Amino acid sequence: MTISFDHTTHGQRVLFGTGTAVTNTVEAVEGLGAKRVLLIADAFASALSDAIAERTPVVARVHEIVQHVPIENATRTAALARKQGADAVITIGGGSSIGLAKIVARDAGLPIIAVPTTFAGSEATNVWGITEAGRKTTGVDDKVLPKVIVYDASLMASLPGRLAVSSGLNAVAHAVDGFWAPRNDPINKAMGTEGLRALFPGLRALHADPDDIGAREKTLYGAYLAAISFASAGSGMHHKICHALGGTYNMPHAETHSVVIGYVTAFNAPYAADAAERVAAAIGDGRSAAAGIYALREEVEAPMSLKELGFKEQDVPEAAGIILPAIPPSNPRQVNRAALETLLRAAWAGDPIE
Amino acid sequence: MTISFDHTTHGQRVLFGTGTAVTNTVEAVEGLGAKRVLLIADAFASALSDAIAERTPVVARVHEIVQHVPIENATRTAALARKQGADAVITIGGGSSIGLAKIVARDAGLPIIAVPTTFAGSEATNVWGITEAGRKTTGVDDKVLPKVIVYDASLMASLPGRLAVSSGLNAVAHAVDGFWAPRNDPINKAMGTEGLRALFPGLRALHADPDDIGAREKTLYGAYLAAISFASAGSGMHHKICHALGGTYNMPHAETHSVVIGYVTAFNAPYAADAAERVAAAIGDGRSAAAGIYALREEVEAPMSLKELGFKEQDVPEAAGIILPAIPPSNPRQVNRAALETLLRAAWAGDPIE
Repeated sequence: MTISFDHTTHGQRVLFGTGTAVTNTVEAVEGLGAKRVLLIADAFASALSDAIAERTPVVARVHEIVQHVPIENATRTAALARKQGADAVITIGGGSSIGLAKIVARDAGLPIIAVPTTFAGSEATNVWGITEAGRKTTGVDDKVLPKVIVYDASLMASLPGRLAVSSGLNAVAHAVDGFWAPRNDPINKAMGTEGLRALFPGLRALHADPDDIGAREKTLYGAYLAAISFASAGSGMHHKICHALGGTYNMPHAETHSVVIGYVTAFNAPYAADAAERVAAAIGDGRSAAAGIYALREEVEAPMSLKELGFKEQDVPEAAGIILPAIPPSNPRQVNRAALETLLRAAWAGDPIE
Repeated sequence: MTISFDHTTHGQRVLFGTGTAVTNTVEAVEGLGAKRVLLIADAFASALSDAIAERTPVVARVHEIVQHVPIENATRTAALARKQGADAVITIGGGSSIGLAKIVARDAGLPIIAVPTTFAGSEATNVWGITEAGRKTTGVDDKVLPKVIVYDASLMASLPGRLAVSSGLNAVAHAVDGFWAPRNDPINKAMGTEGLRALFPGLRALHADPDDIGAREKTLYGAYLAAISFASAGSGMHHKICHALGGTYNMPHAETHSVVIGYVTAFNAPYAADAAERVAAAIGDGRSAAAGIYALREEVEAPMSLKELGFKEQDVPEAAGIILPAIPPSNPRQVNRAALETLLRAAWAGDPIE
């Protein structure tokens, strides 16, 4: 088999350690030589945010975090950064906090130190998003990739169990969908595989005991690698489906991913032996890739159907029509409208396909 | 087990494809937006160098490549780059060509496009070296890490078989020694593991048929990942031993590595279960890590002893004395002088230790 690829590795420093968010953030600020820091933080992270502000040169703080990064907030925050002469941004929180910091980085040219509190993985990508008049625009810009990530598994303790699990399954979807995404290559597949080897046992252990810090660390580590592999490989069939369901039918992000990934895996696996093997090996109990993902979903009590998430069966044909043209040519199995409808109907009902 | 680390991923673009060195180098130059290129090339790569010069904006060419980067050559080449207003360097060749380009990058601030013709891996590191009055100085500077690597397995066809094999075993040593090196972490260990999974079958196939281009690709891909993991994890016990043998006794680089790695693996493996498992899994035939490396060395007809490379038994005690203080505290097994002497004596004789 011939090896041929064009892979870009993005430079990034990752400080990982439970209970070390404050000291590692201080270390990250010093590493960048930053003297005037803008601090963005979810309101719920106020204790951590105070502790960090005490030990770093913070010149301004922003605690108004709104989902999907409305342009008004983003513009105001970037203007604040400029006015205060900030030379770095610390952002604490999930996708919305990191998304806001990314616009500040893009518009004011500041390096980001990200302190994530979910498994969403936005801190590992160069993708930004902004919402104007109800429409979300996204783009790619290397300036928005955080320079440093500070991972502290104890910060995920505040994630509600069900959301933690969906968020973790969303990470599984990042890695699995990357295997057949447009820019898949041996390097990002290796990263995704390593991610899955941590995510499967991590998520199982996390469900068994939500206070198991080792399980949270494993899941967080796996989610990071899955996000890197996804950022590198791009969106495959799974992400195109979820993007359409989220954009047109307003379905919840992580939950939708956790339902759909099993179906896309079952659909593609017979045509993607290498990917199927990687997933099955990470599951490690002899199950096939799709069976293992279905089982994990059930075991950790993640959502099982699009129905329970509010999707309507009568929207299946329309959704299939929207999704079909977005399926990447890299998909290992030919997709047509009938096949998509079958897949969506099964996902709607929560009936596994093989 | 707790996960805790400080990992820096270096940004780099890798274009990989057999027979694509010219087109991918053109693509790399365009990607950087370079308009005035300094071209450094080993004399034996003159056809490739001409072909690249025809299709890229080359303003000056340097073909005088000397081992170990003498300071006179480096200074002259950096001055030439400045005088010609170069905005990028293309370097074609092995460690010496890349080493020269690194000094130009360090002193004139230019991005490097590296087109390697060996498995040495210098293109994946931020380490430079220079020789002044017979003394080699090395240093670390992110500016010297090539921005783009163009890998073309057909360029390795000119490597003599025995050197190809030693160079490949040197790559195995990069990955294995990284597992217990000072900055080892889950990410660089995953990269090293992926590298070994390609290197073991690649080297075996390459030895069976030196014209097997798939085997060369596999070895080259594995050598790249091994070099990344080594650059990230740092020098372990193996590299400290080889460094002393090379520096004090003028032993040949790749060949020395290919002898020593089996002994260090045998010495550490019983105290490094995770590393031993990774190596054994990559070997994949049920052998232990050390037994697998010894067997590979024999199978591919690599040098088997320090004796045949010119090392003298009477130098063992002195060498042990030089090496001992350099052994990193991260080494999984306690090392003392007697143990080092035993190891060196076995490596001298070519008798496996278990």
